[in-house]
Amino acid sequence: MTDPARLSLNLMTVDHWSLAEAVERCAEAGIGTVAPWRHQLDGDSARRIREAGLAVSSLCRGGFFTAPGADDDNRRAVEQAAELGAPVLVLVCGPPAGKDLSAARATIAAGIARLLPFAADHGVRLGIEPLHPMMIGERSAIVTLGEALALARRFDSAHVGVVVDVYHVFWDPALEHDLAGADGLIAGHHVCDWLVPTPDLLAGRGLMGDGIIDLPRIRGLIEQAGYDGAIEVEVINPALAAVPPDALLEDIKARFARG
Amino acid sequence: MTDPARLSLNLMTVDHWSLAEAVERCAEAGIGTVAPWRHQLDGDSARRIREAGLAVSSLCRGGFFTAPGADDDNRRAVEQAAELGAPVLVLVCGPPAGKDLSAARATIAAGIARLLPFAADHGVRLGIEPLHPMMIGERSAIVTLGEALALARRFDSAHVGVVVDVYHVFWDPALEHDLAGADGLIAGHHVCDWLVPTPDLLAGRGLMGDGIIDLPRIRGLIEQAGYDGAIEVEVINPALAAVPPDALLEDIKARFARG
Repeated sequence: MTDPARLSLNLMTVDHWSLAEAVERCAEAGIGTVAPWRHQLDGDSARRIREAGLAVSSLCRGGFFTAPGADDDNRRAVEQAAELGAPVLVLVCGPPAGKDLSAARATIAAGIARLLPFAADHGVRLGIEPLHPMMIGERSAIVTLGEALALARRFDSAHVGVVVDVYHVFWDPALEHDLAGADGLIAGHHVCDWLVPTPDLLAGRGLMGDGIIDLPRIRGLIEQAGYDGAIEVEVINPALAAVPPDALLEDIKARFARG
Repeated sequence: MTDPARLSLNLMTVDHWSLAEAVERCAEAGIGTVAPWRHQLDGDSARRIREAGLAVSSLCRGGFFTAPGADDDNRRAVEQAAELGAPVLVLVCGPPAGKDLSAARATIAAGIARLLPFAADHGVRLGIEPLHPMMIGERSAIVTLGEALALARRFDSAHVGVVVDVYHVFWDPALEHDLAGADGLIAGHHVCDWLVPTPDLLAGRGLMGDGIIDLPRIRGLIEQAGYDGAIEVEVINPALAAVPPDALLEDIKARFARG
């Protein structure tokens, strides 16, 4: 049983809706917190979310430090997070530029170091999200929770933490060990499920309960590490677009509470 | 530059050929070692390979310890490896039966323990192959090299080691550390490449040089750990079936030598 008040809907789950639709439907369904992605924002998003009475758990995403021009874009992402009242900017750190993973990881660390003072000034915490190793080529050279934690610790700052998405880390035999040392470093927790078979490297995620992830166990380890904040439901799967909106939100609420 | 004499063709690369065709073509191309898969064998395979003057680097695969009836099948796999003169039986350990990864890993360890005396009697080494974490749902609960090494060490036996396939482990930030402690435990080394984008979770592998894996670096780390045996080229990708046989083998030889 998970406290329903901790549910935040990561709006990539309903990327087939406009932000306006998503906000209205969440408010009607009693989902009090959302986490938008930047491509979903327009100039009116912060006002719209606030007036609907919703909180924002995070903004997704900054990062891609290995790409040219990342710094300007990341400062803009921090500003957007602050405008939304999002306490966390999720960082998807970017793929290696070539074959040298150590170089990519050093570039990522340097990029976070440059961004951190700006984020702290805006009251936004940077949440390093390790992605599943199958995403290394296109999205992130940071692919284990252990590495994300080690990176976060380097900064020794209240404005840097990690985001633990079960989909990206559940397979890791070091998970229990790593979470046991993560006290104070967890900036977010995302849930979905790992389907068998998994149909796609990016958009093949399942609703909680449809796959093989032991969600209560991982949530327990995260709570033991002191995290009691929002739990974002982030299910990236185009099949969800076929589900009627009300039914989808009710299903998500029920699965969340059971998990 | 890699010594061409170390090249072994893992025959899954040419699974669109019969074993007889593969043996004949490898012999003609001067590839002196092959690694068949069990489904490719018939009662005549060992004789055919021997008479063509080829060596066998490994047989793929045993394992799937989490499935019912695994023990009988694995003993048969050991016998087949011995018949072929394969020094190593590659173990793909099997997926979790449910959500409990620790239980799956314990089942795998117990299965190896039961198989080991039989393998030792037949002079066959068991090679635990960690698979990429994206394959956990269907193929293996052993998904990191560190875990495979820890598992191998438990047995403290010359008849248990690990197989290091670059495709499965290149992403791991612990790779250098883990290989530095792997002296005497490496039973095999497989090469291919990680394509960007990767089109498929199973059969989207690239020929060496077409992707982002730093093959010379990983080979160097493996050699520093004392492994100087065969290097299997294992490229699982149906697109290779469209390449004329002679051209494919010449391309593989050239890429192998360059890497």
